[in-house]
Amino acid sequence: MTPDQAESVVPPPDDVESAVPTPFGPRAYATRMRRAADEAAAARLTGLLLTPGPELTWLCGHRPGTSGERLTLLVLTPESEPRLLVPARDRAQASAAPASAAVRITTWEDGQDPYAAAAGLLLPHGHYGISDTTWSLHLLGLEEALPLSTYRPLSTALPLLRAVKDDDETARLAAAAAAAHAAHDDVLAVRFTGRRESELAADLARLLRVHGHDRVDVARVASGPHSAHPGHRSGERVIEPGDTVVLDLGGRRDGYASAVTRTVHVGPPTEEERGVHEIVRTAQRAAFEAVRPGVPCAEVDRAARAVVTDAGHGEHAVPVTGHGIGITPYEPPYLVAGRTQLLAPGMCVTVGAGILLPGRFGMRVQEAVTCTADGARWLGGAVRGRDLVVVD
Amino acid sequence: MTPDQAESVVPPPDDVESAVPTPFGPRAYATRMRRAADEAAAARLTGLLLTPGPELTWLCGHRPGTSGERLTLLVLTPESEPRLLVPARDRAQASAAPASAAVRITTWEDGQDPYAAAAGLLLPHGHYGISDTTWSLHLLGLEEALPLSTYRPLSTALPLLRAVKDDDETARLAAAAAAAHAAHDDVLAVRFTGRRESELAADLARLLRVHGHDRVDVARVASGPHSAHPGHRSGERVIEPGDTVVLDLGGRRDGYASAVTRTVHVGPPTEEERGVHEIVRTAQRAAFEAVRPGVPCAEVDRAARAVVTDAGHGEHAVPVTGHGIGITPYEPPYLVAGRTQLLAPGMCVTVGAGILLPGRFGMRVQEAVTCTADGARWLGGAVRGRDLVVVD
Repeated sequence: MTPDQAESVVPPPDDVESAVPTPFGPRAYATRMRRAADEAAAARLTGLLLTPGPELTWLCGHRPGTSGERLTLLVLTPESEPRLLVPARDRAQASAAPASAAVRITTWEDGQDPYAAAAGLLLPHGHYGISDTTWSLHLLGLEEALPLSTYRPLSTALPLLRAVKDDDETARLAAAAAAAHAAHDDVLAVRFTGRRESELAADLARLLRVHGHDRVDVARVASGPHSAHPGHRSGERVIEPGDTVVLDLGGRRDGYASAVTRTVHVGPPTEEERGVHEIVRTAQRAAFEAVRPGVPCAEVDRAARAVVTDAGHGEHAVPVTGHGIGITPYEPPYLVAGRTQLLAPGMCVTVGAGILLPGRFGMRVQEAVTCTADGARWLGGAVRGRDLVVVD
Repeated sequence: MTPDQAESVVPPPDDVESAVPTPFGPRAYATRMRRAADEAAAARLTGLLLTPGPELTWLCGHRPGTSGERLTLLVLTPESEPRLLVPARDRAQASAAPASAAVRITTWEDGQDPYAAAAGLLLPHGHYGISDTTWSLHLLGLEEALPLSTYRPLSTALPLLRAVKDDDETARLAAAAAAAHAAHDDVLAVRFTGRRESELAADLARLLRVHGHDRVDVARVASGPHSAHPGHRSGERVIEPGDTVVLDLGGRRDGYASAVTRTVHVGPPTEEERGVHEIVRTAQRAAFEAVRPGVPCAEVDRAARAVVTDAGHGEHAVPVTGHGIGITPYEPPYLVAGRTQLLAPGMCVTVGAGILLPGRFGMRVQEAVTCTADGARWLGGAVRGRDLVVVD
């Protein structure tokens, strides 16, 4: 629902607060790496080059502690075993990664040319998919070391690399969703009236941690007219009776993301407010019911949008119905107009809806679902109560 | 002193906790952009291409809220005014940046090709310096749109772009240093014995905030044998009498970084421990005294290292004497062997020293100084007491 969520997504704070998720077994990583290499071949690529980030974490579980200017590179090709080039100082850490048995680790020393070392693992006329986020520093180094090889960003070469989740991943996403719902339910018990948005946001962040999140990505509170701005940063506004309040919350639990958006009302809502919330919930339900294997992403968006448009609020609808969720809170596939990608069993996405009435109020809802063999399942459990929740 | 610090450097957590530094005036940004364009010309570059990150923030004060996959690009050339290409959704934010009067803002819409838009601002046969951290997604897009232009990473093209600080920057660095020293002094009052490293690290993080930091980058506590490992992550070890404890702390205050390392002892130290600390402090003092305009970076490192080597601990010395500090806690110039770069007035660097005795204990100290017209000045004020501090 909220592309703005992705925009406040940040790595964990310092080591005071971060935690390490339960790793997957070596076999899960080996399977992922093999599948990725095969998908690369099917996409007519020589192989894949991954630098630190979500893809590297997902494929081999290695999250280097060294800063990004030192090259770390995972090379996946169909014809050879996975190779991981790391700075010498990271050898011990890389060797301890759960996938290490399935990876041949090579190192380069400070003072050596890491791109020459990388070139030794690559073909001189290769055509490689490369992480979108790979620093230009490294791509320019590779281009100089291998002037006849070419590169393509992973997001266009293999946009759905992580989209289909296995059962273990789906279970973690479900646990993260349930925890975020529990944090949301708990916050309903606190007093809203008279408190600042930023205070309530701090409550939300705290409750996410209480419910097992080891990292908070989003804890946003937008009240009154602010509720019409999905990118609103919780501020000094004091919440008062009659306010519509949108709560965006999400983080990571055991390595997997949560993302929940809910709208509540301080004191009794007007008939109009009740009506807008009903439209939003109905639109979200329509999106949920549209999710099943073989359905294009755009069709899910269309289903939600049709409800909002039929209710006369087409021009006030939020522009996105949902997005993939996994080890990151915002990833392919994207449930927006124009996306022809077909849903498949195991894909996990958020579905939501929203109506924004600038200068007045806005209402949004969102939560995660998984595409099953014949439909969809709410990851956080059945949605409790469709009515607009009233808080004090 | 600690390259490991850089490795735990992370962006701010969610909007619950981050704060916005006081911006500089429009003239400061205009001066920086003009100087950068001139330096690019002197380095035989057509111009500079900056994507979001420390350089963009420093040059024009724009820190986009959108996620990195949407292209934001600042183009600096000597012959034209600065141009800033942003996603249309960011126009308002970019226009509100303090440097906006000195920048021509252009936008691209979702659905348009941002690289074609960028190409319109660039020369077809240009030779550009580009941010090290620019995503490959964007560099590949630029290379496709302008196949005859070439690119060079900024860290090799203009390694010292941000190294010389103006008076306002130096004042902010001094305030950040003083705040970190105050946080360190406060933590000496808490009880060490019987507490876990992670608890003490949480105290350090809290005290950094109490003293005006709006972001914590490092709050590490390494006790007993852990103190010999600069990259140690504060853990569950319970601190006991007789422990050497190394405290690494740093963050951002008003947009500028702090970095302080101190070693304390729980209860009375042995003669050997006292002696090692004295060597470390003397080595740090030698580095401080070596800092003055025209001195090569390697010479400062040599000065500190000579003290440690002469005392018989050459093989136990930490490998780095210091590094630049500014809006990031770890940046050029680097005070390490082999670096011929000359120090200049206005450069701000950390100076430190350390001796690591694996399996036994380690001692490290570090703090920030500025290079003046004829020497150096401690940024956090005079170092109080050179003796090893004893805590309970």
